Amino acid sequence: MSSWYKSWILLTGFILFYVAYLLFGAFVFSTIERPVEDKLKRDIQVLKEEFLNQSCVNATSLENFLERVLQANKYGISILPNSSASSNWDLASSLFFANTLVTTVGYGHTTPLSDTGKAFSIFYALLGVPFTMLVLTACVQRLMHLVTYGPISMCRQKIGLEPLAATAVHFAILLLVVVLGFFVVPAVVFSYIEDTWSFLDAIYFCFITLCTIGLGDYVPGEKPGQNFRSLYKISVMVYLFVGLMMMYLVLRAFHRMADLHGLTSFFQLPHCDEDIEEDKEPIIEAGHEDQHEAEDSAKPLDPASQTSYNTINR
Amino acid sequence: MSSWYKSWILLTGFILFYVAYLLFGAFVFSTIERPVEDKLKRDIQVLKEEFLNQSCVNATSLENFLERVLQANKYGISILPNSSASSNWDLASSLFFANTLVTTVGYGHTTPLSDTGKAFSIFYALLGVPFTMLVLTACVQRLMHLVTYGPISMCRQKIGLEPLAATAVHFAILLLVVVLGFFVVPAVVFSYIEDTWSFLDAIYFCFITLCTIGLGDYVPGEKPGQNFRSLYKISVMVYLFVGLMMMYLVLRAFHRMADLHGLTSFFQLPHCDEDIEEDKEPIIEAGHEDQHEAEDSAKPLDPASQTSYNTINR
Repeated sequence: MSSWYKSWILLTGFILFYVAYLLFGAFVFSTIERPVEDKLKRDIQVLKEEFLNQSCVNATSLENFLERVLQANKYGISILPNSSASSNWDLASSLFFANTLVTTVGYGHTTPLSDTGKAFSIFYALLGVPFTMLVLTACVQRLMHLVTYGPISMCRQKIGLEPLAATAVHFAILLLVVVLGFFVVPAVVFSYIEDTWSFLDAIYFCFITLCTIGLGDYVPGEKPGQNFRSLYKISVMVYLFVGLMMMYLVLRAFHRMADLHGLTSFFQLPHCDEDIEEDKEPIIEAGHEDQHEAEDSAKPLDPASQTSYNTINR
Repeated sequence: MSSWYKSWILLTGFILFYVAYLLFGAFVFSTIERPVEDKLKRDIQVLKEEFLNQSCVNATSLENFLERVLQANKYGISILPNSSASSNWDLASSLFFANTLVTTVGYGHTTPLSDTGKAFSIFYALLGVPFTMLVLTACVQRLMHLVTYGPISMCRQKIGLEPLAATAVHFAILLLVVVLGFFVVPAVVFSYIEDTWSFLDAIYFCFITLCTIGLGDYVPGEKPGQNFRSLYKISVMVYLFVGLMMMYLVLRAFHRMADLHGLTSFFQLPHCDEDIEEDKEPIIEAGHEDQHEAEDSAKPLDPASQTSYNTINR
């Protein structure tokens, strides 16, 4: 019972600290970038007035003007009047930026303007990315019982399915639920809220986001005069976090099924395993159990042992 | 000996198929997007000429003009004359885009313009992202002996270090080599090649890239009139792939060291492990070894068993 409490206190602590870390990041990014943004906004408005006041517009003057407009736009600063009201570095937007940084999504619709901001981004992601992975892993571990082990066990006991069939049926249902709940339904909602997004645009956004590709051609809550902008941005952050958790859950369920069905054995790479085994034994000074651990951990595509390159992010 | 051959033939096959998959993606993206890009480029030039030919420029006409310019710019199409010569969807650029998609870096400096391009991006990443992870994992497995197990073993046998000290010394050296070889040296090279990048910009680019955040505010080879653009883009792709491999290697070495030093035990989450254990035994129908595997796989922060949320990308 004490270990149960310890486990949940640890998770609650992780989540609270994670939220605090995001708020800290948002505060620092906002403090660093807001003055730089304001200055660039003023500069770009002066530039626009100067351009409008000149007697004749020729190709050269237009190109010089456009070059500076596009440069400002690269940092998320638009010359258009209806865009200038909202800041890219208010607290909600900075929180959203911090969140896309630590989840490695990185839309890049706003990027740090100052050298201090860039240096802080490196430092912030260096700690934040591994921490995000840790929090997500801890959450997924708890969800596995509820979403994977529980239902599979129920399939077997109530319906009397064989283990292999039970995992396959469970995986198909889980996949369907995740596709509906984290792609189709959010896409309907996004295409309703964002006037200029078609349903395909919204599905494309959900997919590009939850794979952490984050191209940034579609970013929610960026249109001028967006209602409840801060609340909307925070909702998208929650969607992103829960969505990533669900993607990870699907992946773990897939690995479990693939392993039970023997699909992974094809990819086993025996040469390196032997090396690992040979090397590991004396270092770990293993007992009987540890030797098995070494053997098991060397199986390349075993769901329990396989590591992903993307664990680089931790 | 036969398993050694099988293992290397498998890896060579993976790499060849991976290169073919990237080329296939590049070809399809180029075919789909190039005509759309050409049309948008022509439209934007006509727009510019019309704007220059009008007798008086007022705020409204300027804003309408800028709105369309910025919209085109969002898709990577610049109105500036020196940018119009190079395409974002020639074969080298499409290959670069395909590569940033499957590695989940996703700079977003160019994004698909057409609905077909967006739909193909989803389909392409759906297969490509897991495949990239598989190829990277297979490569890293082979490198582990050369870069981790071999040197640690040598430290112990030649210098007579204790196992714990040997892994710590090895990790420190590996980290130093990776920071120098994949951050500092490439940053010097990038800041030399890219005129407008400071050293901090280049380090920031390397970090944002190798963490797969990919904000896209700095993308190599995008300046107009870049010499050997195609070759440069392909070199950056190789840097990206090898860099990701090295990040993964560092992470595996870190896990191994943290585990040996008992750093991971703090994060163990006993409640869920019990659940997993309880559930797994009857399903796997495990022999003696498999039971140990189930126990081992349940350890949350064991380097061999811990899974990362970012395995969602596979």
